[in-house]
Amino acid sequence: MAFFEIIKKDIKSPARAGIMTTKSGIVKTPVFMPVGTKATVKAVTNEQLYDAGCGIILGNLYHLYLQPGINVIKKAGGLHKFMNWERSILTDSGGFQVFSLSKIRKVVDNGVEFKSIIDGSSHFFTPEDVIKMQYQIGSDIIMVLDECIPFNEDYNYTLNAAKRTLKWAEVSLKVKNKINFGEEARIFGIVQGGFIKNLRKFCAQSISGMDFDGIAIGGLSVGEKRAQTIDILNYTVEFLDNKKPLYFMGLGDPVGIVEAIGSGVDMFDCAMPTRISRNGSAFTSVGRINIKNNKYTHDFNPLDEKCNCYTCRNYTRSYIRHLSKSKEILSSVLLTIHNLYFIFNLVNQSRDAIISGNFESFRLDFVNKYNRNEK
Amino acid sequence: MAFFEIIKKDIKSPARAGIMTTKSGIVKTPVFMPVGTKATVKAVTNEQLYDAGCGIILGNLYHLYLQPGINVIKKAGGLHKFMNWERSILTDSGGFQVFSLSKIRKVVDNGVEFKSIIDGSSHFFTPEDVIKMQYQIGSDIIMVLDECIPFNEDYNYTLNAAKRTLKWAEVSLKVKNKINFGEEARIFGIVQGGFIKNLRKFCAQSISGMDFDGIAIGGLSVGEKRAQTIDILNYTVEFLDNKKPLYFMGLGDPVGIVEAIGSGVDMFDCAMPTRISRNGSAFTSVGRINIKNNKYTHDFNPLDEKCNCYTCRNYTRSYIRHLSKSKEILSSVLLTIHNLYFIFNLVNQSRDAIISGNFESFRLDFVNKYNRNEK
Repeated sequence: MAFFEIIKKDIKSPARAGIMTTKSGIVKTPVFMPVGTKATVKAVTNEQLYDAGCGIILGNLYHLYLQPGINVIKKAGGLHKFMNWERSILTDSGGFQVFSLSKIRKVVDNGVEFKSIIDGSSHFFTPEDVIKMQYQIGSDIIMVLDECIPFNEDYNYTLNAAKRTLKWAEVSLKVKNKINFGEEARIFGIVQGGFIKNLRKFCAQSISGMDFDGIAIGGLSVGEKRAQTIDILNYTVEFLDNKKPLYFMGLGDPVGIVEAIGSGVDMFDCAMPTRISRNGSAFTSVGRINIKNNKYTHDFNPLDEKCNCYTCRNYTRSYIRHLSKSKEILSSVLLTIHNLYFIFNLVNQSRDAIISGNFESFRLDFVNKYNRNEK
Repeated sequence: MAFFEIIKKDIKSPARAGIMTTKSGIVKTPVFMPVGTKATVKAVTNEQLYDAGCGIILGNLYHLYLQPGINVIKKAGGLHKFMNWERSILTDSGGFQVFSLSKIRKVVDNGVEFKSIIDGSSHFFTPEDVIKMQYQIGSDIIMVLDECIPFNEDYNYTLNAAKRTLKWAEVSLKVKNKINFGEEARIFGIVQGGFIKNLRKFCAQSISGMDFDGIAIGGLSVGEKRAQTIDILNYTVEFLDNKKPLYFMGLGDPVGIVEAIGSGVDMFDCAMPTRISRNGSAFTSVGRINIKNNKYTHDFNPLDEKCNCYTCRNYTRSYIRHLSKSKEILSSVLLTIHNLYFIFNLVNQSRDAIISGNFESFRLDFVNKYNRNEK
């Protein structure tokens, strides 16, 4: 069975609708993957995720390696069994976490040294290690180790990080071939290159020339303006092998997702939709709202009139405001269910629009309505 | 329809099995009511409660009055609609909270003055107010205002508080008759009297002589030893009108519940089973465990081998330990579901044992197994 099949291409844009088949199930693309950092998508049960239409989640090797440890997950029979998740899992290599969470780290040509955020102990990840560990815990889609760099680094810094990431990509494929994954696990390369176009082109072409199952665009959404994200994204996509699934790492805002689908991206992940849920924010079809606002005190409508999620079918803004103001756990639960459903629904509607040939008007309509009340 | 019907009395003890019918549904007794202080049982959805077998929850007038305010709940169409709870609700009058939470309070003959724990503002509750407010928010079972006193107060202090509580009970019944509840709401009196037996007897007889739908035993579980609780409880129950449902306020530990059922108690509430869930503790048939303990790192059994709750059917000790150590919200969710199910199952099994005539051996067997590993 082919891992990725494009079933419809948009006429006016690079957008496409596809089907990805992992050992754990079928994933329709475009798809949003909620972040399940530590073997749980924060605040919700697996059943609440299934019910909201979630087919694939993301786990973080970095966090799982530190707690509970790879050994515990292996003994449990893999990450799926450990957390009782029956659908697909993509695991991130830890590259991004090593760079964003560890204050003390050292990148050398054969890997990264970092200190644990839990107890300060020292650890070393090689590109080989992270592939093996992801394979051992039963990940459906494995990410290579990459060097993610801060926004607007200079040419030489960016070039060196890009070269290292490409070298690690090659090493990763060797490990894959040595273990001989078969169809048990898929492996994605990552395009870096910062905000320097010829380096992005160099990385895009290099990764496209390698035998990966999919290609991720990394190093964006790191503090730049949205226009710059889309500019680099569009430029990069031109040089990618677009027969493979394309994955934008770390994008989760509704407008950004719809725009990036229009650029030809198939997969997304981001901690934002779940994180804002724990702070009282909700996506709605007319923009993001903060439910703690006084104006919702006597508002007995659902979070979003047009939403059909569990939360909107059962609870009012007034009630969720009360819960959120009272710091009740149920507030995080209900908002997470809603916000994830909102994004799942958005990518599903985008998919339907691509298939029925009106993605462009769907995109314009959504962005227009969403931005009207957005700050 | 009779509010309370005893369907079977135990032969060897005052234990009994009954059926309580409120406007919101049928409640089989003995029953445990999870505490839904602020219009939510902490960490779980209504569906998770229904699924665990919950038929009645407890709300706190004191908390609801301060946040979101009675007006909001009235506008929502009552507490059931506000929180979308379809089964029964008993509301506490706020008597206990006024005494346990407010550092600055003043009890006078016509009510209590207290400061808000949220903003320090001053408020005054009269016995009339609390009945009216509970009625207005649609409570199924309304509690009178009482004066709950600290452990081991002297005779005069205890007597004065008891007299005031009895006077407020009479006032409450007048309000009930004036509003003319009908079968829309039931009202319970509260027996105080501290740890002084002749005052307990005096209160028990006085409250039994009034036209209440049920009788609560208050002022216990306030710091005394368990043997003293059971001694005062057994003594008090002798003087109560036991054709009415008897409610032990604030008891939630498994052994205490089974013992009190043996004393003839029909209803229980306590924040403990939900509170310990947020700290990593779980009831099991062989005693309470703390899931954060290292010994559960590689334990892939459910929390309790004999438990059939959602958590035990789907997750392991190892996984829940990891969640709890990682301070993940899902840890509170899964443990709350388990601990409530454990108590619901315990009262259901007690009921079955009463009906089948072997409650005494059930009680001894449960207490013996539970205490074996208990510290």
